[in-house]
Amino acid sequence: MAVYLDHAAATPLRPEARDAWLTVADHAGNASSVHGAGQDMRRILEQSRERIAAVLGCDPIEVVLTSGGTESVNLAVKGLWWARTTGHDDIVLPDGEHHATLDTVEWLVAAQGARVRSVALEPDGRIAPERFATASAGAALATALVANNEVGTISPAADLADAAAQAGTPLHLDAVGAIGHLDLRFSELRGGHRTPDGLVAMSISGHKVGAPVGTGALVVSRHARLAAVLHGGGQQRGLRSGSQDVAGAAALAVALEAAAAERDTEGPRLRDLADSVRRGIRSVVPDAVFLGSETDRLPGHVHVLLPEALGETMLFLLDQRGIQVSTGSACQAGVAEPSHVVLSLGYDDRAARSVLRISLGRTSSADDVAALLGALPDAYARARASSARATSRS
Amino acid sequence: MAVYLDHAAATPLRPEARDAWLTVADHAGNASSVHGAGQDMRRILEQSRERIAAVLGCDPIEVVLTSGGTESVNLAVKGLWWARTTGHDDIVLPDGEHHATLDTVEWLVAAQGARVRSVALEPDGRIAPERFATASAGAALATALVANNEVGTISPAADLADAAAQAGTPLHLDAVGAIGHLDLRFSELRGGHRTPDGLVAMSISGHKVGAPVGTGALVVSRHARLAAVLHGGGQQRGLRSGSQDVAGAAALAVALEAAAAERDTEGPRLRDLADSVRRGIRSVVPDAVFLGSETDRLPGHVHVLLPEALGETMLFLLDQRGIQVSTGSACQAGVAEPSHVVLSLGYDDRAARSVLRISLGRTSSADDVAALLGALPDAYARARASSARATSRS
Repeated sequence: MAVYLDHAAATPLRPEARDAWLTVADHAGNASSVHGAGQDMRRILEQSRERIAAVLGCDPIEVVLTSGGTESVNLAVKGLWWARTTGHDDIVLPDGEHHATLDTVEWLVAAQGARVRSVALEPDGRIAPERFATASAGAALATALVANNEVGTISPAADLADAAAQAGTPLHLDAVGAIGHLDLRFSELRGGHRTPDGLVAMSISGHKVGAPVGTGALVVSRHARLAAVLHGGGQQRGLRSGSQDVAGAAALAVALEAAAAERDTEGPRLRDLADSVRRGIRSVVPDAVFLGSETDRLPGHVHVLLPEALGETMLFLLDQRGIQVSTGSACQAGVAEPSHVVLSLGYDDRAARSVLRISLGRTSSADDVAALLGALPDAYARARASSARATSRS
Repeated sequence: MAVYLDHAAATPLRPEARDAWLTVADHAGNASSVHGAGQDMRRILEQSRERIAAVLGCDPIEVVLTSGGTESVNLAVKGLWWARTTGHDDIVLPDGEHHATLDTVEWLVAAQGARVRSVALEPDGRIAPERFATASAGAALATALVANNEVGTISPAADLADAAAQAGTPLHLDAVGAIGHLDLRFSELRGGHRTPDGLVAMSISGHKVGAPVGTGALVVSRHARLAAVLHGGGQQRGLRSGSQDVAGAAALAVALEAAAAERDTEGPRLRDLADSVRRGIRSVVPDAVFLGSETDRLPGHVHVLLPEALGETMLFLLDQRGIQVSTGSACQAGVAEPSHVVLSLGYDDRAARSVLRISLGRTSSADDVAALLGALPDAYARARASSARATSRS
């Protein structure tokens, strides 16, 4: 039986979300159809939207359902850029963002004339509101990860939203990795202003909270100016056309509610498990460096630099023992590159290849931690030996 | 028990597709992860891609999985336009295309500098290859519906592909409504040339063939030049980033195979049922006009103009009796407008509001037809009376 410690890449489908999916998927009908079957689907869809909105702290009409985090981020960043009316072309882009954001911005630069204003991360991976505020003045839009998907550091979302509002710049928060663990209430973060700046959009993804892969949402303020990325029948305020996945919406609603309901108990439980992981690693690898913030980090997240051991090799050796971890983002299609996040924290190329991400979640137990720590000494010794051989050859 | 006669909007989930979805959805793991769970997902994903490719007659690497027909069309049309290298900015756009295409092209014109070359439809809704060839010369790209989603007319896909190839223009075929009913083999339609013109992309949607809503694909020739619409981790040749929906891919593969396996028996069965519908309508409404082609049309598709009876009213009255039909596309978010397809066939605004689409599918039976025809006389009499009252008032 494998020990799955990669919940930040995808956490297992919750049984109650699967049941919700199944119940709706067996209904025929397109939610845009006028007849009874269509209206039944529409009712389930709008109830799901209301439940999602209740968890995210926004109005139901502000929930735009998407196919997942990548689409949500694309819609936010491209949509805000295309709808910009400030006369500014610059995008405020902190270092260490997810590739969904990085590659979207890169394309806007290469193909659409956008420009980038980088924001350096603090040594613990945090986005500092002061730097963010300075960069945001006179920009077309700003974007920021709430919780870094590699090192797990949580940035102060409310302060970033205030900084954007004071700069008069629209802000997108990428809450994909954060939403299951943090209580992010969109309207509170946004504040009460009725202008199209400050926090206007927030991305979430279903398979990070136990809903099916292929579900997600972008919260879009009713005051935002946003262009669509997918055009067509005009569903969802014209911001996201396409027949709506009602079963997916129902499953997403249930998963978000379940994650919110267990947050107060799961948070401390995962933090305790993650602390045992850290202590265990430290006892095997005394010079291990835990990256990210000591205090503001995702509860189940351990990100560690193991000097003299390539992350790729560690991953392979642990996987042979049935322990499934990651070297960082799972979202780069299997390409082994040094982590751009670790590089942006000031480490060199070799260090950025010597990291492991262990991410615990709903199904993780003390047994999983024991299995990981049991396999670690041998895997680390072998990875270090393999790394030393590779170095002496080169 | 409702009588569902709106399969062109969404056909019920096939039990075998639901089972395939469930089996995969219960596995944890992101298909981009390197560990065993990720590789298991990757294997299922690539097997599903191979099975989809076998049905669509293309190479597995040419299957780009999407969230559905609207995304596929957006990717094809925007992707080809942004990647154009011919020096031409014109998009060849037949009248009567689906809104996914129309609204995408409209946005490219409004926001990105594209221009449109319209192609008038033949009176039966067919796209004539000769007109299409003339328009395609010196264009950036051409797009065409294989089967019109409202009137059900099938255009000669192979001839359109030849026309585009001879013009040296890349072609996207929207096969969303056609794929369950027609055997469209991408490589055969494309021919053997190794240049980025002729047929290069073909859209399909899952929920039109009994796979879940939120699944779909764009076949993209390995010789095509296409820009991405959703950027990120670089999955799927960089053409469609985002964590891949493996359960959806498995369900789509099963549904496509099932649709292909039953096509030779379902086609004639649906044609017979549709013919009884036409005869029954004719006996109640002698001046009914059946739109679309007599010979080349989707087997389960009946599109009828009922003079003196608004489609909206008919739909409402039939729905009260539990008979679920459509006035045309379900994809316009419930907005009652005259059908642009019917207008493009030369009918006036009033006629374009007096149409019904009855679309039969896998679960349709002779009992369904009998129920429709049983409810028709009274519904038609009342709709005509209501329509006459409205006219005398105005």
